Amino acid sequence: MDNSRDGGGAVPEGVRLRDVVALLEEFYPVHTAQSWDRVGLVAGDPEQSVGTILLAVDPTLDVVAEAVALGADLIITHHPLLLKGIHSVATTTAKGATITELLVNDIGLYCAHTNADVADPGVGQALSMACGLIDTEPLQVTEDQELGRVGDLPEPVSLQQLATRLVEHLPPTAGGIRVSGPAAAPVRRVAVLGGAGDSAFEAVRRSGADVYVTADLRHHPALEAREEARAAARAGASSTPYLVDAGHYATEWLWLPGLRDRLAARLGGSVDICLSSVRTDPWDFVVGAGGPESHHSENHPTDHGGMP
Amino acid sequence: MDNSRDGGGAVPEGVRLRDVVALLEEFYPVHTAQSWDRVGLVAGDPEQSVGTILLAVDPTLDVVAEAVALGADLIITHHPLLLKGIHSVATTTAKGATITELLVNDIGLYCAHTNADVADPGVGQALSMACGLIDTEPLQVTEDQELGRVGDLPEPVSLQQLATRLVEHLPPTAGGIRVSGPAAAPVRRVAVLGGAGDSAFEAVRRSGADVYVTADLRHHPALEAREEARAAARAGASSTPYLVDAGHYATEWLWLPGLRDRLAARLGGSVDICLSSVRTDPWDFVVGAGGPESHHSENHPTDHGGMP
Amino acid sequence: MDNSRDGGGAVPEGVRLRDVVALLEEFYPVHTAQSWDRVGLVAGDPEQSVGTILLAVDPTLDVVAEAVALGADLIITHHPLLLKGIHSVATTTAKGATITELLVNDIGLYCAHTNADVADPGVGQALSMACGLIDTEPLQVTEDQELGRVGDLPEPVSLQQLATRLVEHLPPTAGGIRVSGPAAAPVRRVAVLGGAGDSAFEAVRRSGADVYVTADLRHHPALEAREEARAAARAGASSTPYLVDAGHYATEWLWLPGLRDRLAARLGGSVDICLSSVRTDPWDFVVGAGGPESHHSENHPTDHGGMP
Amino acid sequence: MDNSRDGGGAVPEGVRLRDVVALLEEFYPVHTAQSWDRVGLVAGDPEQSVGTILLAVDPTLDVVAEAVALGADLIITHHPLLLKGIHSVATTTAKGATITELLVNDIGLYCAHTNADVADPGVGQALSMACGLIDTEPLQVTEDQELGRVGDLPEPVSLQQLATRLVEHLPPTAGGIRVSGPAAAPVRRVAVLGGAGDSAFEAVRRSGADVYVTADLRHHPALEAREEARAAARAGASSTPYLVDAGHYATEWLWLPGLRDRLAARLGGSVDICLSSVRTDPWDFVVGAGGPESHHSENHPTDHGGMP
Amino acid sequence: MDNSRDGGGAVPEGVRLRDVVALLEEFYPVHTAQSWDRVGLVAGDPEQSVGTILLAVDPTLDVVAEAVALGADLIITHHPLLLKGIHSVATTTAKGATITELLVNDIGLYCAHTNADVADPGVGQALSMACGLIDTEPLQVTEDQELGRVGDLPEPVSLQQLATRLVEHLPPTAGGIRVSGPAAAPVRRVAVLGGAGDSAFEAVRRSGADVYVTADLRHHPALEAREEARAAARAGASSTPYLVDAGHYATEWLWLPGLRDRLAARLGGSVDICLSSVRTDPWDFVVGAGGPESHHSENHPTDHGGMP
Amino acid sequence: MDNSRDGGGAVPEGVRLRDVVALLEEFYPVHTAQSWDRVGLVAGDPEQSVGTILLAVDPTLDVVAEAVALGADLIITHHPLLLKGIHSVATTTAKGATITELLVNDIGLYCAHTNADVADPGVGQALSMACGLIDTEPLQVTEDQELGRVGDLPEPVSLQQLATRLVEHLPPTAGGIRVSGPAAAPVRRVAVLGGAGDSAFEAVRRSGADVYVTADLRHHPALEAREEARAAARAGASSTPYLVDAGHYATEWLWLPGLRDRLAARLGGSVDICLSSVRTDPWDFVVGAGGPESHHSENHPTDHGGMP
Repeated sequence: MDNSRDGGGAVPEGVRLRDVVALLEEFYPVHTAQSWDRVGLVAGDPEQSVGTILLAVDPTLDVVAEAVALGADLIITHHPLLLKGIHSVATTTAKGATITELLVNDIGLYCAHTNADVADPGVGQALSMACGLIDTEPLQVTEDQELGRVGDLPEPVSLQQLATRLVEHLPPTAGGIRVSGPAAAPVRRVAVLGGAGDSAFEAVRRSGADVYVTADLRHHPALEAREEARAAARAGASSTPYLVDAGHYATEWLWLPGLRDRLAARLGGSVDICLSSVRTDPWDFVVGAGGPESHHSENHPTDHGGMP
Repeated sequence: MDNSRDGGGAVPEGVRLRDVVALLEEFYPVHTAQSWDRVGLVAGDPEQSVGTILLAVDPTLDVVAEAVALGADLIITHHPLLLKGIHSVATTTAKGATITELLVNDIGLYCAHTNADVADPGVGQALSMACGLIDTEPLQVTEDQELGRVGDLPEPVSLQQLATRLVEHLPPTAGGIRVSGPAAAPVRRVAVLGGAGDSAFEAVRRSGADVYVTADLRHHPALEAREEARAAARAGASSTPYLVDAGHYATEWLWLPGLRDRLAARLGGSVDICLSSVRTDPWDFVVGAGGPESHHSENHPTDHGGMP
Repeated sequence: MDNSRDGGGAVPEGVRLRDVVALLEEFYPVHTAQSWDRVGLVAGDPEQSVGTILLAVDPTLDVVAEAVALGADLIITHHPLLLKGIHSVATTTAKGATITELLVNDIGLYCAHTNADVADPGVGQALSMACGLIDTEPLQVTEDQELGRVGDLPEPVSLQQLATRLVEHLPPTAGGIRVSGPAAAPVRRVAVLGGAGDSAFEAVRRSGADVYVTADLRHHPALEAREEARAAARAGASSTPYLVDAGHYATEWLWLPGLRDRLAARLGGSVDICLSSVRTDPWDFVVGAGGPESHHSENHPTDHGGMP
Repeated sequence: MDNSRDGGGAVPEGVRLRDVVALLEEFYPVHTAQSWDRVGLVAGDPEQSVGTILLAVDPTLDVVAEAVALGADLIITHHPLLLKGIHSVATTTAKGATITELLVNDIGLYCAHTNADVADPGVGQALSMACGLIDTEPLQVTEDQELGRVGDLPEPVSLQQLATRLVEHLPPTAGGIRVSGPAAAPVRRVAVLGGAGDSAFEAVRRSGADVYVTADLRHHPALEAREEARAAARAGASSTPYLVDAGHYATEWLWLPGLRDRLAARLGGSVDICLSSVRTDPWDFVVGAGGPESHHSENHPTDHGGMP
Repeated sequence: MDNSRDGGGAVPEGVRLRDVVALLEEFYPVHTAQSWDRVGLVAGDPEQSVGTILLAVDPTLDVVAEAVALGADLIITHHPLLLKGIHSVATTTAKGATITELLVNDIGLYCAHTNADVADPGVGQALSMACGLIDTEPLQVTEDQELGRVGDLPEPVSLQQLATRLVEHLPPTAGGIRVSGPAAAPVRRVAVLGGAGDSAFEAVRRSGADVYVTADLRHHPALEAREEARAAARAGASSTPYLVDAGHYATEWLWLPGLRDRLAARLGGSVDICLSSVRTDPWDFVVGAGGPESHHSENHPTDHGGMP
Repeated sequence: MDNSRDGGGAVPEGVRLRDVVALLEEFYPVHTAQSWDRVGLVAGDPEQSVGTILLAVDPTLDVVAEAVALGADLIITHHPLLLKGIHSVATTTAKGATITELLVNDIGLYCAHTNADVADPGVGQALSMACGLIDTEPLQVTEDQELGRVGDLPEPVSLQQLATRLVEHLPPTAGGIRVSGPAAAPVRRVAVLGGAGDSAFEAVRRSGADVYVTADLRHHPALEAREEARAAARAGASSTPYLVDAGHYATEWLWLPGLRDRLAARLGGSVDICLSSVRTDPWDFVVGAGGPESHHSENHPTDHGGMP
C-alpha cells in the first residue's frame, strides 16, 4: 500500500495516488455529486505510486481480477462500490471480498458517479454526443446540478433510425435497445439521461422531447408515461415522448473513452490507462426477442399450446 | 350505470356486478392483499348487469377501447388503476381519461393484484406451472401471505433450455427473456416471482434455488445479486442463483387464461369472458440485441468508430 | 362528455369548459392555493360545452342532483371533493357515487378552495365585508399567501350587536352564531377567517383584535384561547379577543354571490349561473339553545331531576 | 403545601391527598388511559390534608378561583391541565398562572380523563344512561380499552324526541344540541361518545346505530359522514346514522354527579365534595339559531339585502 | 407571588421581576438561543419585587433551599429546569418538587442557556479567558449563532501546563481535569466549548486547534477523535488535537462571576446578588485516579489477583 | 489472506478462522445482540489459519500495531469497529487506515459487543463478580435480552469501601472511579451495567439498588438521577441510588481474562491467546482531582484570584 510495504524506502518517483485524486476532483468536483451519493477515493493510500489505471463502469470482482492481471494500481469506476455503508469487510460478502482483493493487491479504487453525470465532458454529455444532438440544454436541475440533456437532431429521423444509429455507438449488450413507440414515427427533439431514468419523466414532458433515451425503465413507470402521452394526444397529436431504453451499463460506458483521453493528456506517458474489457451488464443472453415488426397494438394468440 | 339510466325499469335478469365481485372475492380474498395494495371494485355500480367481461394485465386506454368495442360491462385486470390516490378525474390526465371512458360507457373495473399473486390458482402458481415445477413451496412470506414459489424441475436442464421452454408459454414480447448466467449451466431448483423481483433476492438465496425467474430487474440489484453469487462461489461451486428476467407483463399475463376458465365454470353461459388482445407491455421493438453467444466475460471492442 | 359522445361532429359553439377553467384560474390562480390543498378541475373534459353553471359550498349528492335537475354542465364549489386521494370510483362510497353521478350526466366539477380564500374578491374579503370592516389588512401569511383579514368597524358596537348584524348577512342555519364573551362588551377591531379557525389563534392575538369571527371552533382550542385572554387580562384589561363562531358553511357561502356576479359579467348571456338552493351545513335543527342571558359565570343547577 | 409550611408539626388527622389519589386510581386505573393522555396528580404533595374537594370538567382560572373561595384543598377535573408539556410556570401564560394560583393556595389538582371515559361507572356510561340506553356494549376498542357505548332504547322514539329528552339531563349551554337528520325519523339503536367524536365515525357505522350522540363535530367530518349515509341509502333505506352534537362540556359534565356520590360514599363525612358552579363551556350566547322547522333540503333566499 | 397576595396594596418600590427579565434579555437575547432550547422566565410573576438574586449553574433542590435560606426572590441558572416539557408539578418528581418549592416561597427562576453560551461576555468567552486565549474567533456557527471559541496562547506551553493553569481558574471538583495526549507536548492553538463537547469534534479539526478544552466527553467520541488524530498523524506530525475534559459544571460556572458583576453594575445597590455556594457537579469523590505518569501506551498488568 | 496468497497450496493444518468464529458464536450467539449493534466477523477470510489471537476492548490503531508485532492472526474486541457503516476504506480516515492495516497484514477482526454484554459468562457477569455480588438477577430486559445485573453484597459496606474494592479489580486508568453520594453511606444492593449507563436509570430505580455501578455518565442524566433520589428521599430516607462511574474501558475490560481462559480451554495448545497491553481508555492523565473529603455540599470559594 505505502512504499514501505514494497520494501523500498525511496521517495516514489512519478505519479502518486494523491495526484490522480487531485486530477479527478478537478474533472468532477466532489460538491457536484448528489447528497445521497458516495464518491471519491474508496480504497488506497494517497502516497502510493500509480503506474497503471483501469477504467470500468462497475467495480466487480472480475474487474478487480482484470486489474490484478494487468498489474494496475488504481481502478476508476462510475458506480460506487459502497453506496450503502458496510459494517464488515470479511470475505463472506461480495463487498468484503472485493475490498479484500483490492487491499491485499495494493490496488486503489476511485468512484466518480453523479459528479461525472453532470460534468461536461461527462456521462450526460457523452450520451448526448452518441445521439448526435446539437443545441443541448439541461434536462433538469437537481440539488443545483444540471442532470441529463435535451437537444435536437440536425434533422428529423424515424424512431427506429435513432435507435439503430445509437447501437453503433454503444458497447454490445445481450439485450440491445428496447423502444416504445411506432418505428416509423419521426423524432427530432431528444432527451437523454444515462443510467436509471424512471424518476425524470416529468422533466422529459416539460422539455417537449419527442423521445427519451435512458435506461433501466420498469413496467409501471414506462407504461404510465406512455399512457399520459396517449391521453394528451387524444386530440390528434402524436403520443410523444417515445421511450428508448438503451441499457444502464451501455449508456454509462460511453463516458469511459473520453475519460481515458483526458487522463492520458494530463498524466503524460508515465501512467498506462486501460479500458476494462469486462462487460459488467448483468445480462448474458436473450431468448425470444421480437423485432420491430411486433407492434404495440398487435394481438398475440391468447391460447398457447400447453398453457395450463 | 344502473339500469334506470338506460331507461328501463325492469329488474336485471342474469348476472349483476355484485355477483361477479362476490365470486372474485372468493377467489382472491381482499384481506390477502398486501397492506399497501389497492384491490377490489374500482368503478361500477354493484347493481348493474354484466353480460361480457374482458380480462387484461393493465387497465390502459387501449384496453378500455377494446372493451367499448366488445360491448363489455366489466374489465378485470391484475394491476390497480389507482394504486396512488387521485384527486381529479378530469380527462386531462391518463387516469382521469380512463375513469371517464369507463363511466360514460357503463363499464366496471375490478383489480386483483397481490391477492391474485398469492392465490392458488393465481399468478405465482401460473408462473410455476409455466416453468414445469413440481414439489413447490412458498418463496417468502410477506404480511402473512405466501409470495412466489420455489420448486424443482423433474430433471435438470441447461439454463438456456429453461429459458427457451419458457418462451413457448409466455405471450410474445419485443424484448424477450434476458438471462444472466452461463447458457450451458445445469439448473434444477427454480424460484419464481411474477412481476417486479428486485426485492426478493434474499429469499431466493435462502431458498437454495439455482435460478430465479422473475421480471423488471434493474442493473444494480441484478449485478449485486450476481456478485454475491460469485463471491459465495469463489471456493469452486457454481455462481448460483442465475437470473431470468421474463418480462413484467408476460409473467403476469400467464394468470389470465386460468381466471377465464374459472369464471366461465362458475358464471355459466350467461356471461361472455374474453382475454384482451392488447399487449400492455410498453416495449414495441428491440434493436441490437445479442444472442446467447455473447458471454459475460467476453471482451467488446473498446473503441467504436465515430465515438466522440 | 366530449362532443363525439353526443354524436355530433360540429365544433361547439359558445363557451367550452376550458374557457371557464381559464377564467377561474385568472380569478383564483392555482399557485395561490396551500400546498396541501387540491384545487382545479376535478371532473370533465375541457372541450365540452358549458351552458349552465351551479355554484355551491360543498359538492354533495344533493347538489349534484340539483345540477342534474337544472341541466347544469358544471358545478363550482368551494370545498374540494377529493382532498384525500381516492382509489376507487365505485358507487359503494359517497365519493365514488358523486363522481359517477357527475360523469354519467356529463357534469364537470371545479373547486376553488384556499386559492379563493386568499383572493380579493374572495372568501376572506366577503366575510370582512359582511362584518362591515374598513382599513383591513391580512390576518396572517401562510405559504406566502395572505389568509384572513383584520380591520376596524367604523365605530365600536357591542359584541352582541356585531353578532346580530352578522346574522342578517349570513344564510340561515339551524345552529346560528355562537359567541364567547360578554354580550355588552364593546368591540371595534375584528379578525375574520372563513371556515375552520382553530389554527389561527396566535395570529389573532398578535393582531390586537377585540373579537375573532370564524367557524368550526372546538372546545379545547376555544377554551384555551379564552383562558389565555383571561390570564393576560388579570391586571384589569378586558379579556379579549372574544370569539364568534358563525358556522363553516355560512361564512364561506358569503363568497358565492360575488362569484356569480363576476362570472356573469365575464361570460355574458351565453351561460346561466345559479346559486345552489341546497344548504350543505350538516345540521338540521337545534334543541335546548339558551339565549344571550345565559352568561359564562352563571351557575347552573348541578342536580337535574332524573339524573342518574 | 406540606404541613411544615402551615407551621404545624402535628401529624395530619383525617384524609390526606395520597388517600384520595389511591381512591381515584382504584376508580380509574392509570393504565387504562390512552397512551397520549396525561392523567393523575398534576399538583400537590401527597402528604397534605384534604378537607374539601371541588369537581369540574375543566381546570380553568375561574374554577381555581372558586376553589380558593370555597377553601378547597383539591380540584378533580376531567380535562388535563397539562396535556401538552410546559416549560415554564411563569404567570405570563394561562397554564403558568393556573399552576401558580394552585400552588400558592395549597390546592392540589387531579385529572381523570380517558381513564374516566372508559370506566364503568364513568363518562361513557353516564352519557349512555342519560340517553336511557339498555343492553349496551362497547362502541370501539382503542389501545385495549372500551371507548364509547352503543345500545338500544326500550322503544323507538323520533330523532327530535331523543334530543329533547337529552336536553333535560344535560347542564344548560348557550348552544344547545345540534341535530343532523329528519326530526321525525324513528331511532332506536344509539351510539354515544362523550367529548370530541370526529374520530369514531367508522366504529359508529359498524355498530349499526341509527344515531350517534357525541360532541365537537366539525363541518367536514360531519358532512362526510352524512354523505356516506346518504350514498349507502340510495337503494331506499334511511340515511342513518343521524348525528346529535350535544356539546363537549355538557356530555362530559354528566360524569361529575356520579363521581361526587362515589367519593362521598368512600371518604365519609370527613371531606366535603362540591360540584363546581362554573360552566366551562366556552360559549356564552347564541344569536340567529333556527328551530327544528329549518330542514336540510329547504332553500334559503340566496340574495340578502345589503349583501355586498 | 404578586404583592396583592402579600396583603399589601402599595406599588412595589425598587426593582421588579420584569425589570430583571428585561435586563437579562438585553444581555442574552432569547432569539439567540438554539431552537431546541428553553430559556427565559420559568417561574414567577413579572410584577413581584426582587431584592436578592442567587446565581447558580443548575436549579437543584439544594440551590432552591439555599435561596430560601438567603431570602432570595429570584434564581438565575445556566441550565433550564424544564428542557423537557412537564405534565405535572406534583411533589412526587424532582421537577415538581423544585417548582413547588419555588412557588410556595415566592421565588422566581430565570434560565439563560445557549443564549448565554454564545453571548460576549458569556460562557464561551469566560472559558476562553480562563485559558488565556488571544485573537479568538468562533469555533462553529450553529443556527446562525457563534458557538465556542478558538484562539492562541501568547506562547506555547506544554499540554500539562495548560491543564494545570486551568485548574487555578476553575471551581474545585472531585474529578478534576482529564487529559488525552502526551503531558509534554507543546500546544498553542486552543479550541474551547463549555459543557458537553461530543458534537463539535469536526469543527475542532477544521479549526486547526492543538487541543480541545471542553467537558462531558464519552468513551466512543473521545476515542474516535483520538484515532482520527493518530491516523492523520501517521506521516509524522503530532496527533493533535489533544483533549481536555474540564468538567461540565466547572466550565460553565466560570460565567457566573461576570454575570454577577454586570447585574450589580446595572441594578445598583437595591438588589443583592449572590453566587451559589452549592457545587452542582454530581460527583462527590474519586478513588483510584492515576497521575500524569500513567501514559497512554503504558502496559497495565493484565492479571489482577482475585480477578475471576 | 487465504493460504493461496501465502504461496502455499497445502491445506491448512490446525485451527482456521471459521473454527474460531464458530466457537465465538457458541459463546455469544449473534441473535442475542441488540438490533442496532454490528457484531461478528469484520475482517478476514474464514479459511485462513489462526495461530495467535489478541484480545482487546477497542480495535484501535495501536492494538493493530501490537497484533502486527505479535504476529497475531486475529483480534477479538468488545467494541465494533464499524458500528456506523463506512463508504470508504482509504487510509485518509481512521477506520479506513485500521481496515487497511488489518488486511495488508492478513489479520482478522471479530467483535462481540452487546451479545457479550448479556452472555453468562460475559461483560455484565464479570462486572457483577468484580463487585462481589451474590443472588444476582437481570437489571433490565431489552429486546428480549437480559442486560446488566442487580444483586446483593454478602454484607453492607460503605459507599467508599465499595469503590475502593472495585479499584483493586479494575485495570488502572488515569481518571479512576468517580462516586456520587456520601462516602460513609452504607450500601448493600448493587446494580451494575458495563459501559455507558445513562439509559438505565429507570431500571435502576425500579431495582431498589442502593448504588449503580456503571460508566460514561454525563452531567445532566447523573444530576437528574441524583435529584430524583433526593426528591424521593425528602421524607427522611437515604437518597439512593448513589452512582459509581468506574470507566467505560475499565468496566468492559473485566470480560477479557475470562474470554482468554475459555478460548484456551477450547482451542487447546495450538493457538496462543494474548491480552492486549494497550490501554484504550482515551484519558492519559488527570490534574486537580479532589479526594473523598470534597463533599457535595461543601462550599468552594467563589472568587478565584485572576478570574476575569
